[in-house]
Amino acid sequence: MKTHPVAEHTDMLEALDEHSCLEYLHSANLGRVAFVTGDDIDVFPVNYACDGAIVVYRTAAGTRLERAPRDHVAFEVDGWDPRELMGWSVVLKGVALDVTGGNDPFSKALRERNVVPLAPGKRERWIAIYPAVITGRRFRSKDAGSQGGEGFRP
Amino acid sequence: MKTHPVAEHTDMLEALDEHSCLEYLHSANLGRVAFVTGDDIDVFPVNYACDGAIVVYRTAAGTRLERAPRDHVAFEVDGWDPRELMGWSVVLKGVALDVTGGNDPFSKALRERNVVPLAPGKRERWIAIYPAVITGRRFRSKDAGSQGGEGFRP
Repeated sequence: MKTHPVAEHTDMLEALDEHSCLEYLHSANLGRVAFVTGDDIDVFPVNYACDGAIVVYRTAAGTRLERAPRDHVAFEVDGWDPRELMGWSVVLKGVALDVTGGNDPFSKALRERNVVPLAPGKRERWIAIYPAVITGRRFRSKDAGSQGGEGFRP
Repeated sequence: MKTHPVAEHTDMLEALDEHSCLEYLHSANLGRVAFVTGDDIDVFPVNYACDGAIVVYRTAAGTRLERAPRDHVAFEVDGWDPRELMGWSVVLKGVALDVTGGNDPFSKALRERNVVPLAPGKRERWIAIYPAVITGRRFRSKDAGSQGGEGFRP
């Protein structure tokens, strides 16, 4: 009898190549952006879209999220693939820039991405994250069957 | 005709009091910890448990997650409440301490929490986050009906 494939992979934590990272990045629309302001670290969930490896999100003027531009940021996305019974996470590290007003073709193209913030309020600032590094990992979960994927991405 | 209650709250972004923050914190088991190492910001998803406002997670020796102790960290949890049609997020800021070896009753109690990391591998380090600040917010989503809560917590 064949061993169940989930059990076979229990101890595997697989590093993802950039192509796979981008596939996962494009498969989701909710990530968390982390950045430093003074001695403080902030983390926020944001709905995002992407253009290749560039992540773009919208935020309101005057919020803490608006402070991210020109700073180094980390952006994390994770999820659960119910077909493959795999948990995954992808992290981008780079700089965040405000592309709200830019008339260059690049900024314009980013502002045409379909970013749909579910959180209410006007969100007229467009922030783009230009990654210097993209890393990711995935694993099959031994508990996938019993938890229905409720653990890594409840 | 009554306005649909979801539509009524479209522009509401509600700040949560500490009690509500803790209720949400206890309702989930997956969060993201963010911390700074040198010029670098790291963000990781972790399965966690909590004891009051203290968050505890397990990690492997020698990983980047292990570097968090004694540092300032931010810990973020978010979710979607399908009964209330509300998205929420809670952020803890504080210090992370390694409680793996402590023989004090407090460290021992934390190590008895039911932390179930779904990611594979031995995770014999226990890290506790002692929050100095807890903040949270929630909102009703105008898109909840059409997206079934897939946006803020896909």
